[in-house]
Amino acid sequence: MQYVFDFTEGSKDQRDLLGGKGANLAEMTSLGLPVPPGFTISTEACRSYLATGREPDGLADEIERHLSGLESGMGKRLGDATDPLLVSVRSGAKFSMPGMMDTVLNVGLTDLSVAGLAAVAGDQRFAWDSYRRLVQMFGKTVLGVDGERFDHALETRKKDRGVDSDVDLTVDDLRDLVAEFKEIVRGESGTNFPQDPRTQLDLAVRAVFESWNTDRARIYRRQERIPDDLGTAVNIVAMVFGNLGPDSGTGVAFTRDPATGEQGVYGDYLPNAQGEDVVAGIRNTLALAELERLDKASYDQLLDIMETLEKHYLDLCDIEFTIERGKLWMLQTRVGKRTAAAAFRIAGQLVDEGLIDEDEALSRVTGAQLAQLMFPQFDPAASRTSIARGMAASPGAAVGKAAFDSATAVEWAQRGDDVILVRRETNPDDLRGMVASRGVLTSRGGKTSHAAVVARGMGRTCVVGVEALRVDPRARAFTTPDGARVTEGDVISIDGGTGEVFLGALPVVPSAVVDALYGRAAAPPSASSGPESEAEAEGESSDVVRREVVSAVLRLMRHADVRRRMEVRANADTGEDARRARDLGAAGIGLCRTEHMFLGARRKIVEHVILARTPEQRDAGLDELRPLQRADFTEILEAMDGQPVTIRLLDPPLHEFLPDLTDLSVRVAVGEATGSPDAEAAALLAEVQRLHEQNPMLGMRGVRLGLVVPGLFELQVRAIAEAAASLLARGLDPQPQIMVPLVAAVQELEAIRDMAEATVAEVAAETGTALRFPIGTMIELPRAAMTAHAIAEAAEFFSFGTNDLTQTTWGFSRDDVEATFFPAYLERGIFGVSPFESIDADGVGRLVSIAAWEGKETRQDLELGVCGEHGGDPDSIHFFESIKLDYVSCSPFRVPVARLEAGRAALVTEGSDSR
Amino acid sequence: MQYVFDFTEGSKDQRDLLGGKGANLAEMTSLGLPVPPGFTISTEACRSYLATGREPDGLADEIERHLSGLESGMGKRLGDATDPLLVSVRSGAKFSMPGMMDTVLNVGLTDLSVAGLAAVAGDQRFAWDSYRRLVQMFGKTVLGVDGERFDHALETRKKDRGVDSDVDLTVDDLRDLVAEFKEIVRGESGTNFPQDPRTQLDLAVRAVFESWNTDRARIYRRQERIPDDLGTAVNIVAMVFGNLGPDSGTGVAFTRDPATGEQGVYGDYLPNAQGEDVVAGIRNTLALAELERLDKASYDQLLDIMETLEKHYLDLCDIEFTIERGKLWMLQTRVGKRTAAAAFRIAGQLVDEGLIDEDEALSRVTGAQLAQLMFPQFDPAASRTSIARGMAASPGAAVGKAAFDSATAVEWAQRGDDVILVRRETNPDDLRGMVASRGVLTSRGGKTSHAAVVARGMGRTCVVGVEALRVDPRARAFTTPDGARVTEGDVISIDGGTGEVFLGALPVVPSAVVDALYGRAAAPPSASSGPESEAEAEGESSDVVRREVVSAVLRLMRHADVRRRMEVRANADTGEDARRARDLGAAGIGLCRTEHMFLGARRKIVEHVILARTPEQRDAGLDELRPLQRADFTEILEAMDGQPVTIRLLDPPLHEFLPDLTDLSVRVAVGEATGSPDAEAAALLAEVQRLHEQNPMLGMRGVRLGLVVPGLFELQVRAIAEAAASLLARGLDPQPQIMVPLVAAVQELEAIRDMAEATVAEVAAETGTALRFPIGTMIELPRAAMTAHAIAEAAEFFSFGTNDLTQTTWGFSRDDVEATFFPAYLERGIFGVSPFESIDADGVGRLVSIAAWEGKETRQDLELGVCGEHGGDPDSIHFFESIKLDYVSCSPFRVPVARLEAGRAALVTEGSDSR
Repeated sequence: MQYVFDFTEGSKDQRDLLGGKGANLAEMTSLGLPVPPGFTISTEACRSYLATGREPDGLADEIERHLSGLESGMGKRLGDATDPLLVSVRSGAKFSMPGMMDTVLNVGLTDLSVAGLAAVAGDQRFAWDSYRRLVQMFGKTVLGVDGERFDHALETRKKDRGVDSDVDLTVDDLRDLVAEFKEIVRGESGTNFPQDPRTQLDLAVRAVFESWNTDRARIYRRQERIPDDLGTAVNIVAMVFGNLGPDSGTGVAFTRDPATGEQGVYGDYLPNAQGEDVVAGIRNTLALAELERLDKASYDQLLDIMETLEKHYLDLCDIEFTIERGKLWMLQTRVGKRTAAAAFRIAGQLVDEGLIDEDEALSRVTGAQLAQLMFPQFDPAASRTSIARGMAASPGAAVGKAAFDSATAVEWAQRGDDVILVRRETNPDDLRGMVASRGVLTSRGGKTSHAAVVARGMGRTCVVGVEALRVDPRARAFTTPDGARVTEGDVISIDGGTGEVFLGALPVVPSAVVDALYGRAAAPPSASSGPESEAEAEGESSDVVRREVVSAVLRLMRHADVRRRMEVRANADTGEDARRARDLGAAGIGLCRTEHMFLGARRKIVEHVILARTPEQRDAGLDELRPLQRADFTEILEAMDGQPVTIRLLDPPLHEFLPDLTDLSVRVAVGEATGSPDAEAAALLAEVQRLHEQNPMLGMRGVRLGLVVPGLFELQVRAIAEAAASLLARGLDPQPQIMVPLVAAVQELEAIRDMAEATVAEVAAETGTALRFPIGTMIELPRAAMTAHAIAEAAEFFSFGTNDLTQTTWGFSRDDVEATFFPAYLERGIFGVSPFESIDADGVGRLVSIAAWEGKETRQDLELGVCGEHGGDPDSIHFFESIKLDYVSCSPFRVPVARLEAGRAALVTEGSDSR
Repeated sequence: MQYVFDFTEGSKDQRDLLGGKGANLAEMTSLGLPVPPGFTISTEACRSYLATGREPDGLADEIERHLSGLESGMGKRLGDATDPLLVSVRSGAKFSMPGMMDTVLNVGLTDLSVAGLAAVAGDQRFAWDSYRRLVQMFGKTVLGVDGERFDHALETRKKDRGVDSDVDLTVDDLRDLVAEFKEIVRGESGTNFPQDPRTQLDLAVRAVFESWNTDRARIYRRQERIPDDLGTAVNIVAMVFGNLGPDSGTGVAFTRDPATGEQGVYGDYLPNAQGEDVVAGIRNTLALAELERLDKASYDQLLDIMETLEKHYLDLCDIEFTIERGKLWMLQTRVGKRTAAAAFRIAGQLVDEGLIDEDEALSRVTGAQLAQLMFPQFDPAASRTSIARGMAASPGAAVGKAAFDSATAVEWAQRGDDVILVRRETNPDDLRGMVASRGVLTSRGGKTSHAAVVARGMGRTCVVGVEALRVDPRARAFTTPDGARVTEGDVISIDGGTGEVFLGALPVVPSAVVDALYGRAAAPPSASSGPESEAEAEGESSDVVRREVVSAVLRLMRHADVRRRMEVRANADTGEDARRARDLGAAGIGLCRTEHMFLGARRKIVEHVILARTPEQRDAGLDELRPLQRADFTEILEAMDGQPVTIRLLDPPLHEFLPDLTDLSVRVAVGEATGSPDAEAAALLAEVQRLHEQNPMLGMRGVRLGLVVPGLFELQVRAIAEAAASLLARGLDPQPQIMVPLVAAVQELEAIRDMAEATVAEVAAETGTALRFPIGTMIELPRAAMTAHAIAEAAEFFSFGTNDLTQTTWGFSRDDVEATFFPAYLERGIFGVSPFESIDADGVGRLVSIAAWEGKETRQDLELGVCGEHGGDPDSIHFFESIKLDYVSCSPFRVPVARLEAGRAALVTEGSDSR
């Protein structure tokens, strides 16, 4: 077993073994690029260490051998007293885990070698500052000393010296600090800072191994769904220094603009500095173009290298580099992150340039990116300055009056105002306020905070963790970093895509991508600002971006449609929604819920049905509903003419159509207590009590209602059949499918199917038309999944209701838990993502997969679809493709996302099929 | 494929092929007993007919061949004009389905052959009456004519003639009736009564086949869990007649007393009658012993046959026989039904007689029978006369004041009275009244009625469908068949084991079996009645029965304990319950619920914990609870010294410890409306609203609570550890196991396990004792079952919580559905039995089985048990044995039942293993 690999040995395809950083360093080395020499200790060694608690046999020897090679190649020895080799020890896992694991620089400096470094560099200050950094980093990272101790000592020294910046400390200051830091190390860790360079190296390697299993790393992995058993590689790289004078420096670069995708050179450069100084933001960086002026040779070389890398990686690369006394060194490269717009645009460009094909381009954009482009955005042509920035927790652009508590938010919303709820953090009491608001802004919390989780769940724009804002709920105001004060009622705007907060109302424009998907022309740029204004100039440029992004989106959507195996249908309950879904590319309605049709003005009729004392009264109510239902179905079947429309028979419990028990109890009791009893309300209360359930989600609903309330489902089936008959008479092609909800046992479905077939046959006879509709069922209970074999005998299709299936499989109801323990669970990494957002493949998904498989065993032509909200979620769509469902159905607005992801998923499965 | 089998060909082991009746007729034939000759058409023929809609090829020929054989054997031809052979065509499935399927007698009679029969029998009246019966039965059964039409014509005729009984009709009357009946047949069915005997036979066979699939037969099978695909056999038997004069007759007999198990001859005899007359109850039957006087030869022969049969079947047999002009014919035999007491006693007797071994004896008694013997009963020594009898729907002996509505029942119960709720039928509004009552009595409905289902669910004694009682809820009274009137407040007694209703308060005595199981001497017979009284005489005899039954029960319990593989533990929350369980043979506590420990006087402390505004306030409350919890656990661990006690950490949602939302809302609102606001109640209301959940069953409970409420589970674990440490210090051997409820993901369990291990280690260090407890989890959510592989990594045991698992797998909550749609579902046969009573093997059971299997794959020594109520249900216990769980846990009182059934289940599995 080989554990250590020289950079000359590996390649970019060995990320499993060498980690991302190591694999790319090896790749650049083999491309002949100027990479400092070094070697990589494999993830295999890390896994062995973590399993056994000690380094695997032979590892020490291998390191020794590679270190010797490195020393002879560099003509220096590690920690040599006269001309020391220094190395960095860097973590590097297969998947990027930014900031989660450890790195130690300047390994090899000791009380002896610091003098050698000073002599060779001709710079005492540089040498002692490097040693100071090593003791600090090593103490904190390897020996577990509280970093605050070092920071405090450094700050005290600067205060004593009356200076602001580290740069202004003298050599003596730094020498004293090194001594002080070593004291801290001894005091805190009970051990001396090691003066043997090889010991430094071994301890640093071990520390990197162990950093794989810190709590924060574990939680991060759970949240990002990175497996726990990968381990990290460790890269030992010869140090190069960007802080050796004005002919040195360090920078980052991108081969294309990661914000817009525009081709050209983008990046930042900081002369006379090390990478960590850039991160610390001590000085302002220069635009990369400035490097041409400072060091034309290095700049030209860098541009050559960037072209080489893009041609080689066939994608936008980001790069970290250092110039040491005029010599350029490449420290890292990888395929770079980019905005949603840039992702589409770059993919399109690369196809145009003949570098990749359309399959590859499709694999490089995601549904999540498309979704981001589909939200309304603040008008890019409008001038604006953000007052603060937090985390983008739930996308969209929201404008409204700041409200500092939920009661106010609800009150203002009820009188018609747009509201932004502003809180330090939210809790379950804020739920009503969040529902009433356009957007939610908090000064605390991360992406898994209550506000973030709940807002995403309900589709509200949300920005969290804007720590620069000081929110004072009692004063009903917040102050911005530059001292402005926003009080209750002031209008603010928040951008859920970027995390920015603005004062005043920014103009919101619809998404150009959505316009294009609907086949509409994009709105012309806003005409309000003069042609000479800066806004207009920016508008021009962003207009180009917009056009190119839209064109790339349309092109990749077309390709996704060519590739995808699954159909995409939509969940829609009205003709208007159905038309919108069809315009966005839906091939049918996968879920038409009928419960909304029982509300509004019809609620009174439904109340009559429920309160009926005799079968005649009840039938009279049902007869009144029938023409209304027929009109509902006619409208939606007409809108989807020629395409399937899956109509779900009534699902929720009856008492949902009656007033709330507690409200009504209070009304009746107060009336009686105050001498004005309300007999009608009291009678209604008796009925509400009779129908009350402890757990309505687990009560008499769905097919149970249909089996127990005479005539209810029959009314619906008859209305469907009559609607279809009338459309047929008009020469149209209605394709209703009748779907029975909440089936747990095949006997339930058989009973409803028999009734439905008889009713359809009656209508066929009455109208003289040939009517025959597929009858199927939701699979939304674990028992239905477990007995799918039997249920498929009576069902022509299964539609997986993964919302309800998630609720019963996990035993929690969405209403109750998203606002209570979900944030804690996400925080602890019990789930990486809410199972209501993305399907839980191990639990819920396993049930879906069993049911799909066993259903097909019974009935080969069983149609399989999914109509839960997971139908529009990218990861879930990939899962559904992997188990070969026939279609996904999602809300109309998610249809493009689902089309794109279904196409991408088909690529993946094709790929895996051909392996 | 042979479809038809002569009685000389088959045996009693061929019930699959020949049905129960056919197999036993063949067995008796081969024993040389006087069975009328005949043959059986196999269930295979029926299945083929039902699948294809027509008789299988060759069947007609086979019937013809066997019919010819029968004719030549009898020396008669079917329907012959001078000396006709008549046959009966009788259904007979593998499992008895009494009254569910069809039978036709006297096939072969026509306008011609009726004269022949009259001549041969020398009895015109007999012949025409037989023909009348055939036309009637054939018309109704084969041709689908409404039976009322014939009954009406017969009644009209009797009224016209001024006679009460059929017997008093003349030959002419009967001849006219035959003509009239044939007219009815033609009018109603559009076809003539067939005059070709073979056509009669073929149509009758086909009618029997088709009767397998009538609605009532299907529903019966679902309820009795008889598979739908067995089909029925058809027996063609030469007719013999018990109604040919005083030297003819018909009877039924038992080889032992099916009520008490007493050895001897029991039965009834009706001279000059056919079997259907006995059923119709037209004349009173004679005790079988009377036959000795009437026909000693036949009587002696019958006794010989009965002895033969018992020796051959090695069990109590019941027999149907007919004597035709002094010749005895055996028409049927089968192993006879018996009471619970008789079942145990007979099994014991047969072992004593050396006829069967103890394994066989054990297989012949059931847990349901044992449970029946364990209920308190009405004192058998007390004299009593039942006023009516209905269906025994839920066992026990209940005495109380009759209440005719639920409000009254609740009111009286609250003032301390015992109440019997009397209703025509119950509905969900009666729930509170049923809870408040000792027993429930209804005049309508069957074993699946609302009253029956709900009462069984809540363990209330219940008698339903006592149609002889006329219940008038408005008058608040019922009248008995003999005209007595019972008004509200009158005391009545109901026997849930027999369905009997009594006036006044019968004395209730504890079960002698229970006394014996506890090792207590049975109570002495009541001394109140004089030695000479009839009651005392009966008491003597019932005392013998009691003694013998008790001794048989103890013997078979011992044998079950020898045989069983599974342990039986008990669900108990207090030391008292634990001691009782141990006395009844429990080998540990499988479920100790801790929620009851948070109620009562402690509720106030719990309220403080929930309402705490600061961590300090909360911790203060928890500290107050700790010594109390420690005392709880000390008591139960002491009671179960040396045996495992599985303690479940707190399961229900916190708001269960607070007042009801609606009640409190009303109180607060009324207080405010009437000018006396209650600030404390208002504050409490705010908290109750905050904790309110739409679906508490699916809310923040179980492990979720433990992960979100700091210190709660830790308090419990610490109390357990401290209790164990203190008992160890006293030299005892406490064996707690810590069980985490409602786990859906292994991460939840890991977090609690880590906390628990740390806490136990702390207490071990503090007390200087070695403490180590198994930590495991409930498997009560489908997701836990689906991911058992992973969960077993962190669990030392799984305990299947099949109550909750049933709720989430089916998606219904017991509270909400047992009273609403369950009765309708049972009625429709959607389930044969409530899945809360007996485990649903296809759905819930499949999940349990997957989890057990995959858990063991991960951890070979994983302990597997079940602690839902199914742990005490016989069928469920057999299921758990089949998937090799280690133990079942049930309520203390069910422990003996579980022991018995676990032993029986082990026999079955051994049997199947050795096959």
